[in-house]
Amino acid sequence: MRRLEEMILQKGRVLPGNILKVDSFLNHQLDVGLLDEVAGEFFRLFREDGVEKVLTLEVSGIAVAALTALKFGVPMVFAKKTVSANMSEEKYVSRVFSYTKNREYEISAAKEFLLPGERVLIVDDFLANGKALEGLLDLLRQAGSVPVGAAIVIEKGFQGGGDRLRGQGLRVESAAVVEAMEGGRVVFRSAGPDR
Amino acid sequence: MRRLEEMILQKGRVLPGNILKVDSFLNHQLDVGLLDEVAGEFFRLFREDGVEKVLTLEVSGIAVAALTALKFGVPMVFAKKTVSANMSEEKYVSRVFSYTKNREYEISAAKEFLLPGERVLIVDDFLANGKALEGLLDLLRQAGSVPVGAAIVIEKGFQGGGDRLRGQGLRVESAAVVEAMEGGRVVFRSAGPDR
Repeated sequence: MRRLEEMILQKGRVLPGNILKVDSFLNHQLDVGLLDEVAGEFFRLFREDGVEKVLTLEVSGIAVAALTALKFGVPMVFAKKTVSANMSEEKYVSRVFSYTKNREYEISAAKEFLLPGERVLIVDDFLANGKALEGLLDLLRQAGSVPVGAAIVIEKGFQGGGDRLRGQGLRVESAAVVEAMEGGRVVFRSAGPDR
Repeated sequence: MRRLEEMILQKGRVLPGNILKVDSFLNHQLDVGLLDEVAGEFFRLFREDGVEKVLTLEVSGIAVAALTALKFGVPMVFAKKTVSANMSEEKYVSRVFSYTKNREYEISAAKEFLLPGERVLIVDDFLANGKALEGLLDLLRQAGSVPVGAAIVIEKGFQGGGDRLRGQGLRVESAAVVEAMEGGRVVFRSAGPDR
């Protein structure tokens, strides 16, 4: 999405360790008008897929997931991060390794909010190595829900998670795919007119 | 707001310790259509107040704050919770005591996103004893921003925080005010036709 790519070029900052800091419009301060446009694009891409629920992971996926769920007219559920969640009768739990923080954490969702056979669109702000997305898919697998795909605001294509999951058959659509961050400069995967 | 009150009566559960569990539509699974109506009500109430930014606190205030900011056409900022944040040149920090968890935590927001003189509407999902709201007001005071008021989804009126802050001159508007939770039954402050 061209407007998102322009915003990344204009406001994003490349920090050591392949970090793309976009906290002026996505992670801390939010340009909700831009996110609403991204949500509209997600709706356009998945409108024929019978989406019944939107699933995201706290914290920074919540706003765009809520805006997306509103377009589809379906509920949104956010999985919670905990340092150590126990399996229980009430919730599904999965484990996610964070390369950024170099530790494992757990994510969980109440069983009553993920239903067998329900068609679920996963929405998140970032996709890098794909570990968080795999954790969300694992929650859906435990629930017997049907993942119709993943809609991502910014994918760091060079970290490989998106392409690995595409290779496993998951439909992954990203509003912007960063192919490289060389010398502080962001390069996008497609230079097309307006993906 | 009548539809919100009806949802609380229908889906809310009163748990020991004055806890109102509304995780089927507000805190974990979100009824974004209902929250968008609440956001529309907040816009109606504060539309003449020159709101330039919406401020909330992670996690569960984010969705309704994003929907509200979209109505106003302004950016949204969420303050972050940390166990121990240090004052720094980059961020404002305040301390909040949580009665639910019986411990103090810190909240922070980057200085670059809270500006002197800027007119800020605080939005949150819950208001009980008012400690979180006071923390957000403290961040705005440090920044020199102007709090135009607080817009709350559910106020637990019997815990007194809202009325104490109103007594200090803050405009507090709540889409639903729970006056009592007696024997598992929720009683609202106003029984008017549709506040």
